Amino acid sequence: MNFHTRKWVRPEDLNANGTLFGGSLLRWIDEEAAIYAIIQLGNFRVVTKFISEIEFQASALQGDLIEMGLIATQFGRTSITMRAVVRNMITRRVILSIEKLVFVSLDDNGHPKPHGFTQITYNRDRMPTEHPATGAIRLPER
Amino acid sequence: MNFHTRKWVRPEDLNANGTLFGGSLLRWIDEEAAIYAIIQLGNFRVVTKFISEIEFQASALQGDLIEMGLIATQFGRTSITMRAVVRNMITRRVILSIEKLVFVSLDDNGHPKPHGFTQITYNRDRMPTEHPATGAIRLPER
Amino acid sequence: MNFHTRKWVRPEDLNANGTLFGGSLLRWIDEEAAIYAIIQLGNFRVVTKFISEIEFQASALQGDLIEMGLIATQFGRTSITMRAVVRNMITRRVILSIEKLVFVSLDDNGHPKPHGFTQITYNRDRMPTEHPATGAIRLPER
Amino acid sequence: MNFHTRKWVRPEDLNANGTLFGGSLLRWIDEEAAIYAIIQLGNFRVVTKFISEIEFQASALQGDLIEMGLIATQFGRTSITMRAVVRNMITRRVILSIEKLVFVSLDDNGHPKPHGFTQITYNRDRMPTEHPATGAIRLPER
Amino acid sequence: MNFHTRKWVRPEDLNANGTLFGGSLLRWIDEEAAIYAIIQLGNFRVVTKFISEIEFQASALQGDLIEMGLIATQFGRTSITMRAVVRNMITRRVILSIEKLVFVSLDDNGHPKPHGFTQITYNRDRMPTEHPATGAIRLPER
Amino acid sequence: MNFHTRKWVRPEDLNANGTLFGGSLLRWIDEEAAIYAIIQLGNFRVVTKFISEIEFQASALQGDLIEMGLIATQFGRTSITMRAVVRNMITRRVILSIEKLVFVSLDDNGHPKPHGFTQITYNRDRMPTEHPATGAIRLPER
Repeated sequence: MNFHTRKWVRPEDLNANGTLFGGSLLRWIDEEAAIYAIIQLGNFRVVTKFISEIEFQASALQGDLIEMGLIATQFGRTSITMRAVVRNMITRRVILSIEKLVFVSLDDNGHPKPHGFTQITYNRDRMPTEHPATGAIRLPER
Repeated sequence: MNFHTRKWVRPEDLNANGTLFGGSLLRWIDEEAAIYAIIQLGNFRVVTKFISEIEFQASALQGDLIEMGLIATQFGRTSITMRAVVRNMITRRVILSIEKLVFVSLDDNGHPKPHGFTQITYNRDRMPTEHPATGAIRLPER
Repeated sequence: MNFHTRKWVRPEDLNANGTLFGGSLLRWIDEEAAIYAIIQLGNFRVVTKFISEIEFQASALQGDLIEMGLIATQFGRTSITMRAVVRNMITRRVILSIEKLVFVSLDDNGHPKPHGFTQITYNRDRMPTEHPATGAIRLPER
Repeated sequence: MNFHTRKWVRPEDLNANGTLFGGSLLRWIDEEAAIYAIIQLGNFRVVTKFISEIEFQASALQGDLIEMGLIATQFGRTSITMRAVVRNMITRRVILSIEKLVFVSLDDNGHPKPHGFTQITYNRDRMPTEHPATGAIRLPER
Repeated sequence: MNFHTRKWVRPEDLNANGTLFGGSLLRWIDEEAAIYAIIQLGNFRVVTKFISEIEFQASALQGDLIEMGLIATQFGRTSITMRAVVRNMITRRVILSIEKLVFVSLDDNGHPKPHGFTQITYNRDRMPTEHPATGAIRLPER
Repeated sequence: MNFHTRKWVRPEDLNANGTLFGGSLLRWIDEEAAIYAIIQLGNFRVVTKFISEIEFQASALQGDLIEMGLIATQFGRTSITMRAVVRNMITRRVILSIEKLVFVSLDDNGHPKPHGFTQITYNRDRMPTEHPATGAIRLPER
């Protein structure tokens, strides 16, 4: 599992008790999973479809450093399933883990669209070339 | 189930595809559940402990009106279990439902604290009188 | 008067003195009033036109629970007038009250548009079926 | 009347209809008025006490430039009354004007505190030297 | 140099150490510079092109009042160069200064566009009349 | 250079022209650099001291994926110097690069504090064990 995005817990991320707000955590992991899914499926149009049960194992305080890890565990015909872990960079304690995060690849009409992949890529060889906002084709630079 | 808090989906709530960002939804329902738990348990110090699986059944767009419903389904010794529904106020379609949202009541040291309740109150008879930030006692006005 | 949306005052809602920021309060009540007006007038295109004088009767601190109440008091030809109250859920103290909040219903060109209603509905029988962003017709589910 | 703070209307400031959200406007003017009151009363502990009626005379769109003007119109024993105007920098149209914005000066216990001023200063000769967060004395540099 | 926009440092502007977040400062000065450039070049389509080195000379705390100053120092064919200062309104200490902030004027295709100006205006005689979002012509009111 | 934190450009990150707001970019890179500095210097109390000149080489649009890379280039007695790159994950184009980002390590009184390191660590062997908010010692789990 690779850990990419990091957060430094700031006052705006706290709940009224002064500990990390659960809703902020869920927001962060959902965004990170969307990015991971886009890279694996080569399509910007992905949506959260299912999240398996979540146990909040530890909390975090202002000033803590947090990192998020993801790994694809299954490729469906139009979907991708990921496992996710959020942990404290300092103590290495797991804050929460999610066994299954399922995202679905969509076509331009918002219907599920087969993606044709069956395995993880560790390269950036599936990056979409059509821009999500403009539709313009953009080739990677060499 | 009572529906209280409402949201009008604004540009800042959208993901990059222009549909309601899943992470925003999760943030909203987590905050609403915290408020509900405080009222039922008479304690400001509550934390999210567990969220059962979540299926995203429908999406929403900018301008949609959303409402969130909660009902306590079980009282543990130190915890409360709630069922949650988020739905579109216009079409009445369910956007997501969560069978079990578990919050735990904590004491001043952050350890689970028995709350002594076994049933839902529909009144505001359990409101905490000690202020979360200052500790000052504040009695309800008549 | 019905109280719907609730807020749990978090660090990001505070002014630099550590009390609830007046501007946040005004923002919350304006959004809640817009939602109420849309439901009563059956039109997404509503704008704030007038707010009568506002007295800030009490403050609130981090961790306080706030609720917002609204009731329509008058239906004009193209407008709706509401009375608004924001109060502390714990102490029941009124934080602010506004005698008149006037919203106007607009047509697609941004001009005032007669709405044809003269009384409050307590049902959701006036919900707009045309989606604000796409214009698509969406019928309520049964 | 002097116009100081300016805003460039960005997507996050829009309501779901794509026009400037009334709540954002109120938030901006409340913050600007607090700053003005601090400078006039020489005290960081000021709170919004009263806002007279507000007519929304024009709207604004994404990309518009907005500026906010304030002028003290009356000094009470513990309060200051200001007049406020928000206008479009491009068209010079008034977006909203507020005849009376009253802020009150507070002591450390949150009670109204006489400020001793009766006239506007156009210099920065009343700046508080005690820091709001730390209480440390800080003299202006020369 | 004229100082316009002011900020009252709130909890959401702090880093995890409780001092003003450097990233917030940079965000504020970039927005203020964009507004200044639009007024000088008479074009809404301006983008940040270059920022010279930045020394953070002092910090700020929650509750501090901050003001931002800008002055055009050079007009290129398609660009404008500004000098920027952010200072504490209370102590007058400079928080940061930037010798050169370069913005470029763009045409509708995003290419640099000559602006034809060589000197600062202190009036609002170059305001763009074409609205950025709609393209509609809007003349200043008299 | 390692690339960690990723962003999916959402409506709230755009300027009024619909392209990625320069101020958001600067905010993101400043936060990422703070996290990197904490890990290298083993101290939560770090502040931005200096940023060398920044050229904005390319823009980004809503929906783009962005990643941020950092590498320490020099260790001073109380400071660390980093090189930073922000690039588009899709096209691999560099959006901006900064040759020198200098952060300083502080003691509890806010004065520069020698850190004793002279080289990059690629492990997490310097993580601070004293918590920034509480001062409590927290050892890494095994």
